[in-house]
Amino acid sequence: MAKTIAILTGGGDCPGLNAVIRGVVRSAIKTYGFRVLGIEDGFDGLLNGPRVRELDLAAVRGVLQLGGTLLGTSNRGNPLSYPVQENGQTVFRDVSQQVVDNFRALGAEALVAVGGDGTLKIAQRLHELGLQVVGVPKTIDNDLRATDVTFGYNTAVSVVTEALDRLHTTAESHQRVMVVEVMGRDAGWIALESGLAGGADVILLPEIPYDIEKICAAIQRRRAGGSRFSIVVVAEGAFARDGQQVLQVSADQSCCGVPRLGGIAHAVADQLTHCLDMEVRTVVLGHVQRGGSPTPFDRILGTRFGVKAVDLIAEGRYGQMVALRGREVLATPIAEAVGQLNLVDPDGDMVRAAEKLGIMLGR
Amino acid sequence: MAKTIAILTGGGDCPGLNAVIRGVVRSAIKTYGFRVLGIEDGFDGLLNGPRVRELDLAAVRGVLQLGGTLLGTSNRGNPLSYPVQENGQTVFRDVSQQVVDNFRALGAEALVAVGGDGTLKIAQRLHELGLQVVGVPKTIDNDLRATDVTFGYNTAVSVVTEALDRLHTTAESHQRVMVVEVMGRDAGWIALESGLAGGADVILLPEIPYDIEKICAAIQRRRAGGSRFSIVVVAEGAFARDGQQVLQVSADQSCCGVPRLGGIAHAVADQLTHCLDMEVRTVVLGHVQRGGSPTPFDRILGTRFGVKAVDLIAEGRYGQMVALRGREVLATPIAEAVGQLNLVDPDGDMVRAAEKLGIMLGR
Amino acid sequence: MAKTIAILTGGGDCPGLNAVIRGVVRSAIKTYGFRVLGIEDGFDGLLNGPRVRELDLAAVRGVLQLGGTLLGTSNRGNPLSYPVQENGQTVFRDVSQQVVDNFRALGAEALVAVGGDGTLKIAQRLHELGLQVVGVPKTIDNDLRATDVTFGYNTAVSVVTEALDRLHTTAESHQRVMVVEVMGRDAGWIALESGLAGGADVILLPEIPYDIEKICAAIQRRRAGGSRFSIVVVAEGAFARDGQQVLQVSADQSCCGVPRLGGIAHAVADQLTHCLDMEVRTVVLGHVQRGGSPTPFDRILGTRFGVKAVDLIAEGRYGQMVALRGREVLATPIAEAVGQLNLVDPDGDMVRAAEKLGIMLGR
Amino acid sequence: MAKTIAILTGGGDCPGLNAVIRGVVRSAIKTYGFRVLGIEDGFDGLLNGPRVRELDLAAVRGVLQLGGTLLGTSNRGNPLSYPVQENGQTVFRDVSQQVVDNFRALGAEALVAVGGDGTLKIAQRLHELGLQVVGVPKTIDNDLRATDVTFGYNTAVSVVTEALDRLHTTAESHQRVMVVEVMGRDAGWIALESGLAGGADVILLPEIPYDIEKICAAIQRRRAGGSRFSIVVVAEGAFARDGQQVLQVSADQSCCGVPRLGGIAHAVADQLTHCLDMEVRTVVLGHVQRGGSPTPFDRILGTRFGVKAVDLIAEGRYGQMVALRGREVLATPIAEAVGQLNLVDPDGDMVRAAEKLGIMLGR
Repeated sequence: MAKTIAILTGGGDCPGLNAVIRGVVRSAIKTYGFRVLGIEDGFDGLLNGPRVRELDLAAVRGVLQLGGTLLGTSNRGNPLSYPVQENGQTVFRDVSQQVVDNFRALGAEALVAVGGDGTLKIAQRLHELGLQVVGVPKTIDNDLRATDVTFGYNTAVSVVTEALDRLHTTAESHQRVMVVEVMGRDAGWIALESGLAGGADVILLPEIPYDIEKICAAIQRRRAGGSRFSIVVVAEGAFARDGQQVLQVSADQSCCGVPRLGGIAHAVADQLTHCLDMEVRTVVLGHVQRGGSPTPFDRILGTRFGVKAVDLIAEGRYGQMVALRGREVLATPIAEAVGQLNLVDPDGDMVRAAEKLGIMLGR
Repeated sequence: MAKTIAILTGGGDCPGLNAVIRGVVRSAIKTYGFRVLGIEDGFDGLLNGPRVRELDLAAVRGVLQLGGTLLGTSNRGNPLSYPVQENGQTVFRDVSQQVVDNFRALGAEALVAVGGDGTLKIAQRLHELGLQVVGVPKTIDNDLRATDVTFGYNTAVSVVTEALDRLHTTAESHQRVMVVEVMGRDAGWIALESGLAGGADVILLPEIPYDIEKICAAIQRRRAGGSRFSIVVVAEGAFARDGQQVLQVSADQSCCGVPRLGGIAHAVADQLTHCLDMEVRTVVLGHVQRGGSPTPFDRILGTRFGVKAVDLIAEGRYGQMVALRGREVLATPIAEAVGQLNLVDPDGDMVRAAEKLGIMLGR
Repeated sequence: MAKTIAILTGGGDCPGLNAVIRGVVRSAIKTYGFRVLGIEDGFDGLLNGPRVRELDLAAVRGVLQLGGTLLGTSNRGNPLSYPVQENGQTVFRDVSQQVVDNFRALGAEALVAVGGDGTLKIAQRLHELGLQVVGVPKTIDNDLRATDVTFGYNTAVSVVTEALDRLHTTAESHQRVMVVEVMGRDAGWIALESGLAGGADVILLPEIPYDIEKICAAIQRRRAGGSRFSIVVVAEGAFARDGQQVLQVSADQSCCGVPRLGGIAHAVADQLTHCLDMEVRTVVLGHVQRGGSPTPFDRILGTRFGVKAVDLIAEGRYGQMVALRGREVLATPIAEAVGQLNLVDPDGDMVRAAEKLGIMLGR
Repeated sequence: MAKTIAILTGGGDCPGLNAVIRGVVRSAIKTYGFRVLGIEDGFDGLLNGPRVRELDLAAVRGVLQLGGTLLGTSNRGNPLSYPVQENGQTVFRDVSQQVVDNFRALGAEALVAVGGDGTLKIAQRLHELGLQVVGVPKTIDNDLRATDVTFGYNTAVSVVTEALDRLHTTAESHQRVMVVEVMGRDAGWIALESGLAGGADVILLPEIPYDIEKICAAIQRRRAGGSRFSIVVVAEGAFARDGQQVLQVSADQSCCGVPRLGGIAHAVADQLTHCLDMEVRTVVLGHVQRGGSPTPFDRILGTRFGVKAVDLIAEGRYGQMVALRGREVLATPIAEAVGQLNLVDPDGDMVRAAEKLGIMLGR
């Protein structure tokens, strides 16, 4: 009887997830003759359900160019600390063993777990409990060290760059300073690369605490040189050298009931308004950065990751995850990969190139 | 000696303004042998300066596909109520006569004034003072009644639709309600058309005060039917039937020093959070809607408007503005056009079509 | 019991067809409670089969942004002259009555026929035979007179304009003449509008036979003025005033076994090579013009057409087709619409505007 | 006195060339205080002229997002074998020394030569003659071995993938086989990567001679499995195992006076028509693949290459060219780089992944 494998996608969605799923399904069926099950809504589809459906070739037709994940994802709960009702109260328990038991009840022999650092940590725990699992890394921020880059990031940079192209013309027509907030809580890759590609004048990263005085001075120099507008790209995790702004931001975010992005852009705009005699406007790109059709790069990388994950299963190399190194897709132990951040090097090649161009990085 | 004409662009920038300028310059030079001056930064370039440059064919090369306006625009002041320093205080004066005098000093015989309702009102006043002026209407919201549609609007709908396409996949993957705020202070055209094109489930317009209970009920019906996410498109000028939310929004907007879009999206999200047991997220598209390369429609319409404006000057038909009616570009008196809003008809063809599809319009 | 209606799509595919299908399905189910059948591959799905499936709400989920038609289309045969095997030979017969009989066997009461002039002629014949039919016009060339414009055309202009934007930079870098062939056998709308939007220097339409000497002279004048490249947009149906080139083109097209687009572009390039001392290159855009995600305009128009078609069925107004006039979608008799071409007026507003800009139209 | 450097771009144009120029100019002026001259139309601007202009900061404003090269390029002649008139005849001479002499007459100390293998060979020769030169590699086909990848390639893959997305819907609606010819004379990277990203069913590369029987069989298997259309992506340099088609193609290309792309697509379509009972259509993407706004990846890489080239000049490291290895931009001797092709490995990671997905590579 044919081997059965299963796949789930966890954490925030990312363009390219469907390419991974399609790569797994097509390679499993066409090359290895495996049967593939799709688990819905991440680990939640194992804990509440099961919610599982078979993925045949027809199920992945036409999905290569679609954003999101056809399997859904869930933030409802991390199996390592899952919300459980006990005596009328919500307590948090490690339910990994239940995940393993429920998975075995499906009759599948191996699991492809696609997700970020959180999902990979769970995968590692399941592996330790004896479940045959391989990992596929996912992070739109590009902040995982185990792989040179993951799918989704290229699309995010592309969306942000297109927005910067649009904002240039309106900023210039109105002689404005435009502060654009982009994703990047720990790592400033999206801000740095889209800022380079979109012709930003100032780029603020979590890795380089910023000095607002220097930013104001840079914008004033630009103006004195005849450039009557400036584009400031700021990663959501950026913060001022003196730390004050962080407090201000938190206060701002709590002033409405709804959780809201956009704290740092408003804080920076606030500060610039005080030191400049120019109109300052903010744009918070938010969820559009995650969505939509993946770029060719992300479709290809997702596809190769999916194919490689099935290869690992066929070879019985469990506890491993796929990764890109240079131009090769290879395997690396999940245990060594989790918790390792890929940050922008403040003295690295790309930051230095940006500064040589005259871009202000806040220092 | 060749006749000299001048052109300026006023008010908020709009994709297609450069097409108008190019159309004016090429047609004036190639067909009529006129010389063309470009006045910078709207009427401000006449009041503080003059800041004027000649526009030859080279000056408009390659601009057809660029957003914004190569002449700049200004919100610094409306000549009908212009900030003037008197006795150490800022007072507001009608400086129209000074505009006329300064214009005459340029040696130009006629002015093409490109702008929205505000700019057209100024143009009418200048016309009454004897200046030879023709108007070109501009409104990204499509809220001018004198013309079927103006340039810039099509691009804005296109940008918003693309954003909705992106948000669909992320909303679906996460089972979220996504509230997307778009431009439209008085008229809800952008919300209505991009909502129709982008597959929105709820569309809220300034023309139809919304009932939050009905929106919640609609989203719950969708969910019961198996659609686990919803997209709500809301025009910035939309408001609740009972009016309460407007206050709440104002309060929210004042909690940071920087002026900020996004009031209504947060208010709606707030309300939905109370009546739904789902994650609700907001996206405020903001300035990206104004920017970037114009769609073919806007490039063509801007070009035709520019050509027609020069025709009107050649024919001595001053005090007129160009307009699109059906497929024809024609002339209409500025005096009759100003102050006439083009609103969405709550009982019109397009709203009814939306409701027949099952889209909830908040009533 | 609920009324059952059916829909089919005929002729060449067009972005926006899925919007029509979705509009029909959603409006039929949500507003009128009808059941909807989808007939596959145009009239062929009635003659060979039947190949029919039910279209419920799930069947049209996510299709608004997809090009093509989810029902397929067919060029296999026109029921008015259908290939039939008789005595071992293929003869052509009018099989309209069989179409009517097979349709009735489905148990559906009314048919929405979406297609171009050919499809509408068949629909009219079926109507005369007593079938309850309404029409939805489709033509990517915009060559039907009954409607101001149809869906698909706007997308085609958009695809061509984007290609012209791309070709500009490469033509300029290499100092080339670039001859770009676009769709438009009888009507030159795509060439005219994309040429206007894409900054073409020469535009050749079927409606204005071209004089190659004048084109060469125009390109040489441009060069003398410092513009070292030229973009020539030519509709596939364009032809030279003296008619010679048409022969040459036919000869060229038959030199390979495979039917091939691109005749006129090569003929024009050939002629230009003789009169100019410049590199001349051709690009034949071909099938990419038909494909891909529809623009917002086409999604909205397709949707409104679909909704209106169901309204006509609900009102029992058979033998009518939907049409756009100004901003309204209304009904018009199919019988009056067929065979009426919408051509570019050589003395019309838009052609004159192009010539005032200095664009050479070949005369 | 400030050092003066110069830059020229040679060979076919490529998205990202302006990013290189801008990177050179900004970094040279802002970081090193150099003066920058732009040589027009490649080496031709030195041999016929000189045609040179100063590039200040204003000269590179707004060019980051433009395709092509603001300096122009030239195919007029290779200085190593340059057409010269002698005794009324055109003969070909090595004019490298004249290039060196003319360059010195400009008063510039170092040259940045941006171009493909041909340009780099010239640069190496000039270096041997004592000219202080650094190279920047350019190849839209990605066929240079010295660098992991160059700018322009990513944009080309993106343009082709978008075209494949468009063609999918039309191919499916009409049940056609669509043969799409893309760039790649020696190396099939564009075909392979865009085919993977665009969901191609068959990919034909110069590196893997194809067997038409196997392709027909694969398309028939698809059809038997219910997929009624197929997309065949073919690199312009692909050829059949038995070699016959190459002759056929050459014959075809000479049947018109104008040089023409598209030979191999027509040849493959011809062959498929004989073995399949399906409509086969061809699309030759041609020059659109080179043009238009570069992707973020190409903007960033071009920028980094430009910055690094100036660094090399500042460090006096002449005879070197910049290259990307992994994530680093570094220097490598031009002499070792020229003439080394980067071909697709028929047994490599990416080809194997494609075959595991079920894509037919013609073998």
